Amino acid sequence: MLKTILKNNLVESMEKIADEENVLSSYDERYTYSTDSTNITNPNEIADVIVFPLNTHQVSEIMQYAYKNTISVVARAAGTNLCGACLPKKGGIILDFARMNKILEINKDNLICKVEPGVVIEDLQKAVEEYDLFYPPDPSNLKVSMIGGSIGLSSGGPHTFKYGSTKDFIIDLEVVMADGTILHTGSSCSKDVTGYNMTQLFIGSEGTLGIITQATIRLIPKPEAKRVMLAYFDNLEDTATTVNEIISNLITPSVIDLMDRNTLQTVESFYPCGLLTDKTAALLIEIDGFKANLENQYNKIIEICKNNNSAHIQTANTKEEEDRIWISRRSSFGATAKLAPNVVTEDVVVPRENIVPLVKGIWEICKKYELKTCIMGHIGDGNIHPNIALDLRNEKERNNFKQAKTELFELALSLNGRLSGEHGIGCEKSYFINKALDPNNLALMKQIKQLLDPKNILNPNKIF
Amino acid sequence: MLKTILKNNLVESMEKIADEENVLSSYDERYTYSTDSTNITNPNEIADVIVFPLNTHQVSEIMQYAYKNTISVVARAAGTNLCGACLPKKGGIILDFARMNKILEINKDNLICKVEPGVVIEDLQKAVEEYDLFYPPDPSNLKVSMIGGSIGLSSGGPHTFKYGSTKDFIIDLEVVMADGTILHTGSSCSKDVTGYNMTQLFIGSEGTLGIITQATIRLIPKPEAKRVMLAYFDNLEDTATTVNEIISNLITPSVIDLMDRNTLQTVESFYPCGLLTDKTAALLIEIDGFKANLENQYNKIIEICKNNNSAHIQTANTKEEEDRIWISRRSSFGATAKLAPNVVTEDVVVPRENIVPLVKGIWEICKKYELKTCIMGHIGDGNIHPNIALDLRNEKERNNFKQAKTELFELALSLNGRLSGEHGIGCEKSYFINKALDPNNLALMKQIKQLLDPKNILNPNKIF
Repeated sequence: MLKTILKNNLVESMEKIADEENVLSSYDERYTYSTDSTNITNPNEIADVIVFPLNTHQVSEIMQYAYKNTISVVARAAGTNLCGACLPKKGGIILDFARMNKILEINKDNLICKVEPGVVIEDLQKAVEEYDLFYPPDPSNLKVSMIGGSIGLSSGGPHTFKYGSTKDFIIDLEVVMADGTILHTGSSCSKDVTGYNMTQLFIGSEGTLGIITQATIRLIPKPEAKRVMLAYFDNLEDTATTVNEIISNLITPSVIDLMDRNTLQTVESFYPCGLLTDKTAALLIEIDGFKANLENQYNKIIEICKNNNSAHIQTANTKEEEDRIWISRRSSFGATAKLAPNVVTEDVVVPRENIVPLVKGIWEICKKYELKTCIMGHIGDGNIHPNIALDLRNEKERNNFKQAKTELFELALSLNGRLSGEHGIGCEKSYFINKALDPNNLALMKQIKQLLDPKNILNPNKIF
Repeated sequence: MLKTILKNNLVESMEKIADEENVLSSYDERYTYSTDSTNITNPNEIADVIVFPLNTHQVSEIMQYAYKNTISVVARAAGTNLCGACLPKKGGIILDFARMNKILEINKDNLICKVEPGVVIEDLQKAVEEYDLFYPPDPSNLKVSMIGGSIGLSSGGPHTFKYGSTKDFIIDLEVVMADGTILHTGSSCSKDVTGYNMTQLFIGSEGTLGIITQATIRLIPKPEAKRVMLAYFDNLEDTATTVNEIISNLITPSVIDLMDRNTLQTVESFYPCGLLTDKTAALLIEIDGFKANLENQYNKIIEICKNNNSAHIQTANTKEEEDRIWISRRSSFGATAKLAPNVVTEDVVVPRENIVPLVKGIWEICKKYELKTCIMGHIGDGNIHPNIALDLRNEKERNNFKQAKTELFELALSLNGRLSGEHGIGCEKSYFINKALDPNNLALMKQIKQLLDPKNILNPNKIF
């Protein structure tokens, strides 16, 4: 996208800063890295160079160069996001953090760890588990997704209902600003009110305000044990009432996820695991804590499910039975992907009291536009993901999806909801942000973007 | 502080906006409201008018007037803060929120409530408890302190170790900006990544970026039961090891607070409740959850305390025994206040691994400067409060305290700590902020202050 002379100079400069072996510049390589897990790569929006920085100093030097020459910079971790958050809309530099992937410290006494952005989330979870510690945020793609992207998008996961999302676990960030300045936003103290909360300004800002190069993460003691079950229902109302009653009984499940009939049927047809495919919905419920404490809660939940007309309850008493239940939940995206060449995973959130009209509304919209949709989501948080299977090469399907998406957003907003609970806005939802936010709040966000990135070089054309 | 003509006009204008009955302008009244719980009221820094707004619209009109006429505005809730956060350093308007004190909504299905800034925290806790819900942040002054001040300072309390501080429970704010613009920062969805996290920018900003006029608060199910104990130790090392071992055993106490010997002795001499006054330190440990689950944890904690040479463990098996233990902890400030005309409560925080050198260092500093000091704090969070009893009219004591305070801050920073864990910076610690923060981070905070409050009328001379 840059002029040839500047571009040659760019590649050379990057090689000088980060060494030749950490810079990619062929068309194929640049195309490959100009994609993410969204289905919307535009061949006209390709990065000019891909750089794998090895340390913060290099990132700072790269930003100084980019700032001086007004070149866009997109921070990329695993590229698993679903909203186009790391697509290089204006070309420029992709900073890929795959090679800054060290866990720098795990400190059990302080209940913290320090990591570089390229650490894979599952690796982080396993590493801290060896110290009997727990990092709860668990986006579905945690086997490949990286902490840097997760912080950039403040991602959640099934465990967010009980434990909170990424934003609730980050207490300090090292950030490289648009002009190359390096700063630390917080401290290693889990409790700290020394000045404004700059840490939270960068979390979820999708790389539009600064480049995250290190994070300090708060950890908690690992729960000793878990129990899981799958409860089926013949209608959504009973499903929602069950969730409310579990909470009314003072139980906070570690996971309380919803799968609709299409999800049950689609998963069962591709990964048979004994799901009942004639039920309207199923709740995957997990509780955790001390082993001795779980039995009472488990039995109470079963009682509540039965009282609310649960059609069937699949309990799990062995590791194998537990795994079988989790497979059904974890396979929903993969199974949907077998229905059509593309799957788009949407992400809207409403106050939980509006979950029934939200899910019913999504069914209606998808029926109207003839879209094969498997709905799952974190019902405890009011956060729903329609997985829509379609062929984006087919113009009718593409247009139908486009209209359905807008109606989905309108539906969520009409139910006091929001555009995204955990996937972010990126360039996929930015067209709708004006309708979703208080205009004065949006104006303030834009002023802050302008203040921190006056040349608009940090991940341009995202969020707004 | 304002010229007489402008001042007369100011009082009249305020009466026009908020009605005469909600405006105070006599010297005595203005003096009274120009104080907070810090011992530093300066008779030359008195507000020109006190206004009790009744709604957001009035706050907006007042800010429009103040912006146009460049008049300082200090938001005040109960005035219980300990860092001079609501002292009118440049006179102007005090906006007292005592009459905007309604709980607007408690929604059990959504696990949220909506409140005005003047709601007393204990009233809020009791109100939500009627719905079997729980708002955990519990600053020690919760019987009088108000949620607006608590949000402005992101205050904590004993329960912060397990549950988090104020910042972890606020999901939406209505804010009136310096020029009178009204905006909403978030939504009623507990999970929401639609744009930047503006909510957290205002929490803990001490009224320097905007005036909070409404808050949406996330709640959690109320724990069914609690158990409490007091464990004594002959040295700090055993005390700290006990805390680490409890956590290593996967137990997260709802409270784990420290009292040192001076605290035990001072409390016992004024409010006799059977404390052992010859021990070096005591841990107040509370666990909560389902009744059936507590016994195992309680016994495990007793075992850990014994293994770490606890000199005595005072268990509580009745409500009376529980209350007796809590009285000792809750009386520490009041008892210290009986030692001298003034008590200054300091507030520093370090990573928990440095708690022993912090407490020992504070003992040394206070000995050196001959200051009677009772130390208590939230040891689980590394957050320590020295309560210093002195006569501020005595020049020597005053100067000694001043030097001790600076050494205390230097000590905390040398242990990778911070100036404040939960009380804020205000005008009491602002002289030290340059040493406490990354200069680039501090510069960014100042830029944000300049952006949001270009005329510097919002609580001037605070934090920086």
